[in-house]
Amino acid sequence: MLKENQEFTSIIFEPMGRRIKVKLGDNILRSALRSGIGIRNECGGIFGKCGKCKIIIKDQSNLNSPTKVERELLGESELKKGYRLACQSIIRGEVRVFVPEESKIRKRRLQIFGIKREVRLKPTIKKLHIKIPHPSIQDNRSDVERITSTIKEVYNIHELKFNLEVLRELPKIARDANWDLTITLMDDGTVISVEPRDTTNSLYGVAIDLGTSKIVASLIDLINGNLIMSNGFDNPQVIYGEDIISRITYAAIGKEQLDELKRLAVEGVNSIVTDLCKAANVDINNVYEIVLVGNTVMHHLFLGLETKYLGLSPYVPVINDQLNLRANELNIQINNGGRVYLPPVIAGFIGSDNTADLLSTNFYEIEDMSLMIDLGTNTEINLGNKDEILCCSCASGPAFEGGHIKHGMKAVEGAIEKVSINHQTYEAHYKTIGGLRPIGICGSAMIDLLAEMLKCGLIDNRGRYRNEVKTPRLRKGEFGYEYVVAWFNETDIGEDIVITQTDIAELQLAKAAIYCGCRILMKRKGIETRDIKKVFIAGAFGGYINLNNAKIIGLIPDVPTERIEFVGNAALSGAEILLKSKELRKDLKNILKKVKYVELGAQPDFNEEFLSALPFPHLKKELFPSVINLINTH
Amino acid sequence: MLKENQEFTSIIFEPMGRRIKVKLGDNILRSALRSGIGIRNECGGIFGKCGKCKIIIKDQSNLNSPTKVERELLGESELKKGYRLACQSIIRGEVRVFVPEESKIRKRRLQIFGIKREVRLKPTIKKLHIKIPHPSIQDNRSDVERITSTIKEVYNIHELKFNLEVLRELPKIARDANWDLTITLMDDGTVISVEPRDTTNSLYGVAIDLGTSKIVASLIDLINGNLIMSNGFDNPQVIYGEDIISRITYAAIGKEQLDELKRLAVEGVNSIVTDLCKAANVDINNVYEIVLVGNTVMHHLFLGLETKYLGLSPYVPVINDQLNLRANELNIQINNGGRVYLPPVIAGFIGSDNTADLLSTNFYEIEDMSLMIDLGTNTEINLGNKDEILCCSCASGPAFEGGHIKHGMKAVEGAIEKVSINHQTYEAHYKTIGGLRPIGICGSAMIDLLAEMLKCGLIDNRGRYRNEVKTPRLRKGEFGYEYVVAWFNETDIGEDIVITQTDIAELQLAKAAIYCGCRILMKRKGIETRDIKKVFIAGAFGGYINLNNAKIIGLIPDVPTERIEFVGNAALSGAEILLKSKELRKDLKNILKKVKYVELGAQPDFNEEFLSALPFPHLKKELFPSVINLINTH
Repeated sequence: MLKENQEFTSIIFEPMGRRIKVKLGDNILRSALRSGIGIRNECGGIFGKCGKCKIIIKDQSNLNSPTKVERELLGESELKKGYRLACQSIIRGEVRVFVPEESKIRKRRLQIFGIKREVRLKPTIKKLHIKIPHPSIQDNRSDVERITSTIKEVYNIHELKFNLEVLRELPKIARDANWDLTITLMDDGTVISVEPRDTTNSLYGVAIDLGTSKIVASLIDLINGNLIMSNGFDNPQVIYGEDIISRITYAAIGKEQLDELKRLAVEGVNSIVTDLCKAANVDINNVYEIVLVGNTVMHHLFLGLETKYLGLSPYVPVINDQLNLRANELNIQINNGGRVYLPPVIAGFIGSDNTADLLSTNFYEIEDMSLMIDLGTNTEINLGNKDEILCCSCASGPAFEGGHIKHGMKAVEGAIEKVSINHQTYEAHYKTIGGLRPIGICGSAMIDLLAEMLKCGLIDNRGRYRNEVKTPRLRKGEFGYEYVVAWFNETDIGEDIVITQTDIAELQLAKAAIYCGCRILMKRKGIETRDIKKVFIAGAFGGYINLNNAKIIGLIPDVPTERIEFVGNAALSGAEILLKSKELRKDLKNILKKVKYVELGAQPDFNEEFLSALPFPHLKKELFPSVINLINTH
Repeated sequence: MLKENQEFTSIIFEPMGRRIKVKLGDNILRSALRSGIGIRNECGGIFGKCGKCKIIIKDQSNLNSPTKVERELLGESELKKGYRLACQSIIRGEVRVFVPEESKIRKRRLQIFGIKREVRLKPTIKKLHIKIPHPSIQDNRSDVERITSTIKEVYNIHELKFNLEVLRELPKIARDANWDLTITLMDDGTVISVEPRDTTNSLYGVAIDLGTSKIVASLIDLINGNLIMSNGFDNPQVIYGEDIISRITYAAIGKEQLDELKRLAVEGVNSIVTDLCKAANVDINNVYEIVLVGNTVMHHLFLGLETKYLGLSPYVPVINDQLNLRANELNIQINNGGRVYLPPVIAGFIGSDNTADLLSTNFYEIEDMSLMIDLGTNTEINLGNKDEILCCSCASGPAFEGGHIKHGMKAVEGAIEKVSINHQTYEAHYKTIGGLRPIGICGSAMIDLLAEMLKCGLIDNRGRYRNEVKTPRLRKGEFGYEYVVAWFNETDIGEDIVITQTDIAELQLAKAAIYCGCRILMKRKGIETRDIKKVFIAGAFGGYINLNNAKIIGLIPDVPTERIEFVGNAALSGAEILLKSKELRKDLKNILKKVKYVELGAQPDFNEEFLSALPFPHLKKELFPSVINLINTH
């Protein structure tokens, strides 16, 4: 037995067998995350809201009793089995915690590659090799004057400015190198680095898409424009919640919390840059610039800007202009004089990732009427062409990423990613990521499930289960009717994987939000679906969805499949282009003048359009002529 | 008795009665300075060279034996009395140290006020008060866009850039103040501060002259241009040596030492600014800019730039261009977005204080041929007019500031500042600063002494004592002949205050260096003394010297006294002007184009001119027609 005044105890996590030291009175989720043990917590673990941090504790004598929240979210049968929510479980002494598969944070399928657009290589940073006359009693100009006049002579560049850090190391470097130097120069004439001898063939940059859950990055050789390597890491901020609203809520607690999220974002960026450089055998001091894009919340958190007002109507950012900052001012560890460029964000929920999307697809130069949908918790939609682009953000919610769905999960290993249902037997056939035993359902499979259930008549066009269909897979569960996608003995979680009536309702809200966004933009533009000549689908799970099924459920407008192109991580591609082309950066201001933000909440027809988009595929069947006949209406 | 392995002991300083803890093996000087006990150390205490850190220790059983250096510098009689040099005394256990008056660092007479020139008030920083429309669902522009467009509308200013720090605090300030804000703007459109409500009448700047031994500063109200208050502090770097070469030598040891001198300079500036603000009841956050001038070594040390090469031929600075830096990048504690402006330096030994001198005297716009001498350890000389200005720096050395002179000292309380000698009796009459009992001789009195001794024939025009003069005041001492200025019973140091043959030689070198500088500039310009229509004498001790005596010894050219003006701390005045006038800053580049630096060491006639300037007043008597007859040649 532990004494009352003992401050620490240890808990053991199974099946990993890890023992960690924890404070009495702390909750299990926070203790686990602090020790690097990944337990899902889509809500950020500070609300007891998402119900994803399920753990199993057989001997609960050293824990508090289940809370009201746990009783509501877990249901009687799970409580009986020893299920608890880690965020609600207060440690009173030694406990042994079992982390079931469905609660583990797993390796995600990574969408790094995106559409590639060629641009003329003209980075903002260049290197000049110079040999400078030595100082003498006849020529006692200052070190800076000596360099400046040589550069003027040889390269015809006037008006240099020197960073203080450069001035501090210049005298020694210059003399050690016998005045044989390489000068690294910003576009505006700022000298950001001085290196001994000729290093003009070592000039690198990193493009980064700082996503809510993932940071993906590309290391680019700025001498020839080649992509050397890309990689993706989890955003370390996920320990404070997997969705953006959790981050806003956490940061709103106070400066300390905001700074913590900033620190984590910076740490994440530093890790991925270090990792890329190591893997590619590139000296990190030869990385001179980072171009970073992201949604507006990530953009603000990375900079340490208040995100509170991004979460409150009218959702205004602090700044939307581009920023060109010193890396060391942001604690970003590249070359000491290095820079971080952040292209403009467009609105509170349209970030610089959307700006980058427009660049990599060349959206703003297309003649034909085009649509781009970047699917995510917030789905950004752009509609237009070279003359004008309307854009909006839909609060599509985390349903397609696994949030608020009983067995929903992100596209990590073990997730069911494809499903078909036999129209006679109502049996399900599925495929998981990595071919593992299933532990849940990810977004692409949810689209399949809904479409298949519509096609075989398991649900009606309002999304309600038809209880007259006779199959053991359709049954009444704790949360209303549910369809069994995988039986417990096939899974790795020891229970049936189902999709419930409530889940369907959540998915309906999500798809309605997205389609409603498309529809309102079309109306504001005065066009119909048939006028759309080109559709780009971007985003992490974009490449894996079945387009026909997406049209059947009314997630995307009924545009012929051959006009639809998956562009993958178009945001990262856009960041890469911005790294390579200073001309494009200059054009940005004019490009973005074409972009008009449409605040959906302020549109008078928003409610009507949203409600009309709830049925499958839509209240107005005529909007989906190519798929409407596939739906089994009995 | 102390055990061998005991690491610390204590020493007691008298007459203060302070006990401090010290490390065994440390020297007394370093230990004292570290504890804030001021002991003179003109050489920086790392050479055992200046002999100024004399202390008396009666019981020397816990000390090392006197070193070779001590035996040379102190002489037998002093050693017998228990004199030691603090820098040479190694602590082996408890000791009781007596610090004699002449070794104490005392309050200096301060030259803060200088010539005042009127300029049109147009600071680089301005404040704008704006009332901004609140965000709404119909107007969801970002905070920055909202401010930018209001400023564009109301003040017709385009293209603002926001500091990251401002962006971080903007959302809260704006909402707390109900969008009633004051924006502080740099000339280049950078927003450096955002404050709630109307603060447009609180806008201050500080002008600073960072001298080798003193930091003097003025607090200026930038709304009306008024000087609110000036003050002066010791430069905290003096603990590492009182002259500039000691600082260069200390900084050359390594980065740690350079950084320590930087830290001390920054600390000194922060102290004086804080102090001025407190005394004037001004919120330090309403100080937005500092203009700092100083010699090139101080300029470099303040910025943390390598000073090593300023001490080695060809004495090149790292940079001579003007710099406009963020205060927080330099750890200067004013408004968080505040700036520090440093005008250009001219050469390794011609700093931005000389630039400021030229501005405050309007030297570069004068029609008549003019001369400016800024007296100090390095004496800067400018000769010219609106068309061209030649300038040079003379290594006049510390003699006139007390260095290398047996009883020499700075102009602090107790220093003899004026002397006359009766031509019949050879008796000396003196006046001390503060009317205290004398403890040494400062520069102005040294000029008087030399001139008086020349007039009454105590020395010849080569500076040699005439031993045929019969007076008890002229006697043979340990270092050759010496003249007693004050008998021991009149002084506060318990010994006679004398001027030795060696002292005279030192002063001769100093005055020859200065005159030689003037002479070479005149020759390069092709003019004679009679062509000089105006002379400015600047510098700390300038205002206190007897001009006729200065001419008798040949320190300054023989220009009629009515053409000579004391301009005091012209450098601080110049810094004040630069704080008030952004136009003058813009003109600086063109003004400095008129200034040609003459490297004396590189002049073929330097040696000849220097040697000719050694006799009193000069080898060529015709150069000093107005005073030559005052000298008693027997």
